[in-house]
Amino acid sequence: MTNNNLISRRISNIPASAIHEMTRLSAEVRDPAFLSWAKPTSDTPDHIKDAACEAIKKGLVGGYSVNAGLLELRKAITDKLKRDNNIEANSSEILVTVGAIEGLSAAIMTLVDPGDEVILPSPNYSTHTRQVIIASGVPVFVPTIEGNGFQLDIDGIRKAITNKTKAIMFCTPSNPTGAVFEEDKLRELAEIAIKNNLAVITDEAYEYFTFDGAKHFSIASIPEMKERTVSCFTFTKTYAMTGWRVGYAVASTEIIKQMKKAHIPFAICAPVASQYAALAALQGPQNCVEEFRQKYLSMRDLMCKRLDELSTVFEYHKPMGSYLMFPKILLKEGADSESFCKKLLREARVSTTPGVAFGPTGESHLRMSFCVPKETINRAFDRMEEYF
Amino acid sequence: MTNNNLISRRISNIPASAIHEMTRLSAEVRDPAFLSWAKPTSDTPDHIKDAACEAIKKGLVGGYSVNAGLLELRKAITDKLKRDNNIEANSSEILVTVGAIEGLSAAIMTLVDPGDEVILPSPNYSTHTRQVIIASGVPVFVPTIEGNGFQLDIDGIRKAITNKTKAIMFCTPSNPTGAVFEEDKLRELAEIAIKNNLAVITDEAYEYFTFDGAKHFSIASIPEMKERTVSCFTFTKTYAMTGWRVGYAVASTEIIKQMKKAHIPFAICAPVASQYAALAALQGPQNCVEEFRQKYLSMRDLMCKRLDELSTVFEYHKPMGSYLMFPKILLKEGADSESFCKKLLREARVSTTPGVAFGPTGESHLRMSFCVPKETINRAFDRMEEYF
Repeated sequence: MTNNNLISRRISNIPASAIHEMTRLSAEVRDPAFLSWAKPTSDTPDHIKDAACEAIKKGLVGGYSVNAGLLELRKAITDKLKRDNNIEANSSEILVTVGAIEGLSAAIMTLVDPGDEVILPSPNYSTHTRQVIIASGVPVFVPTIEGNGFQLDIDGIRKAITNKTKAIMFCTPSNPTGAVFEEDKLRELAEIAIKNNLAVITDEAYEYFTFDGAKHFSIASIPEMKERTVSCFTFTKTYAMTGWRVGYAVASTEIIKQMKKAHIPFAICAPVASQYAALAALQGPQNCVEEFRQKYLSMRDLMCKRLDELSTVFEYHKPMGSYLMFPKILLKEGADSESFCKKLLREARVSTTPGVAFGPTGESHLRMSFCVPKETINRAFDRMEEYF
Repeated sequence: MTNNNLISRRISNIPASAIHEMTRLSAEVRDPAFLSWAKPTSDTPDHIKDAACEAIKKGLVGGYSVNAGLLELRKAITDKLKRDNNIEANSSEILVTVGAIEGLSAAIMTLVDPGDEVILPSPNYSTHTRQVIIASGVPVFVPTIEGNGFQLDIDGIRKAITNKTKAIMFCTPSNPTGAVFEEDKLRELAEIAIKNNLAVITDEAYEYFTFDGAKHFSIASIPEMKERTVSCFTFTKTYAMTGWRVGYAVASTEIIKQMKKAHIPFAICAPVASQYAALAALQGPQNCVEEFRQKYLSMRDLMCKRLDELSTVFEYHKPMGSYLMFPKILLKEGADSESFCKKLLREARVSTTPGVAFGPTGESHLRMSFCVPKETINRAFDRMEEYF
């Protein structure tokens, strides 16, 4: 490591990704049962794939698109936002991005300076924390209320605000907990943001995957919030399009104009074949989305049933959304979730993600994905039943 | 603009892109002759497009690839680096990125902390400057020697080094000047980097487009430089693949490992269909690259000939590489390159890019692209001849 002194402090401060570490370790285990990836196992629907191939063959994808994304796609996105999110936007308020992730990075760069604090209701998606650190910002973790299904702790957030606080960033439906933040809590959060002149950055990747009547609410649908909110969406989860790397951000024209100054140095534009795929996803039949939702719902129910049979090992809140859950480990050795997960992988051949990867309040938990085939869930739990 | 106070200082410090401003203004002009984009007008070769469609149809692109990129692609890249760049690397030293641009942003984040200085031989690609500013770094412009065809000023670079200097970042063949930095100058630069423990970040997007016997030299081919160099490449220019957004960085295993901590929050992975397209580009026939080079060469010669006929207006150095040139404006009003270019667009209907967009040393110049059809060059110069 002769060159270690060349690495920036911001990057040195970031631990290696636990998710990718588990992937690496899983490669050393014979036939592991994989519950560690938040990645749909279905392939992208055919009509979307066909549209991409058609655009490729027509010679439409060889050159850059405009940086903000194809106008036709941005127009289709504004229709979708109005219909499904109750967000009024025009095409100058949309930025097509490399998945939601690049939009989130561009938003952080646009809103956060070195030393600024960003409040993260926690446990939270680990990449959000890294995005704040890369911007030389300071992540401030505010625990959600586990006893209330990991809902927002509005008082906790209020108390965490200092004169350094610049933004609040969260994911709903939540990765990793499966919580769907309630509308009334989000309205309270909006009041706090307005009162304290804070920006809000949302990750709504799992917007269509809610269960048992839980409803996804977009905070940017509150008209007073629009000027201070960057809402990030993606085609990734909704249409099983993770590999295509296409999503979008919606914000005021002024914020989008500024975000382009980060979007261009990060990506120039989103991959153009993927933009045509995304357009077909929005314009085509939507039954695939409901099919995915139904599938995740039945996998969730199966996972909950199997967890009930392991009630001396795990305690959980039934996830109301996403395709992830975040059981608490009741055993003493669960206090160190990383060694617990590694042992579970080595000895029971079940791959999960240690809760500590999702912020300090994630310790003593693990994350399990239910966007997997039924057989994977059953195999994982058969093995765990035998093991514990 | 009620929310202007939410925008970070780093982003507020970045001026709007002159290139995109000229694109916007061009839309208001009837049938402009476009010399302002560094974007090939050819479509991607068919065998590359076909390979992408095949991968899409086979269901290979719906899910994420590993973050570093498909192993098969990384292996093909190491072969190419050995053959064409004299760089010895293994697949753990490669990171497949969203064009060269995302690799450059990830490299800057990995090597530069707020307040660190980055030396940019100038005029330089404007996005490099922005990448430094987004990282809250300080760009330090060192003029190249225009009288010597915009070659590196090694003494100037030596004098610019302070105890804050962290890296040197450049593009060869150069955007915007078309200079190909000479091997002996790059070897001197390497000595400076080693002596002062600096990182070097290169953008070698135009590596295959050199003329008149000029040879592209990769600084990372110097064995002692490998541990401190991030070299960024792309398929974008070589194979007319700008819209696909796929490139790669090569560096030491340790630097690549750290760069992934930025790559994941920026992109997760490069678009997978584009990775398959890139693999086909490397494995397929290479005659398309030589065809593109020949085409750019003849367009360069045409542009130079037409510039010779306007010798009272422009003075230029014949570009030895890339598909860009950077004539000096001899007229008094050229001192303000931005108003000069805007006037040229409005009154002569010729779209170019003002030199000031490429750093302070770019003033009194404009950038012209010759990756355009012959007719565009002739139309542009016919109009300019009539105008001046």
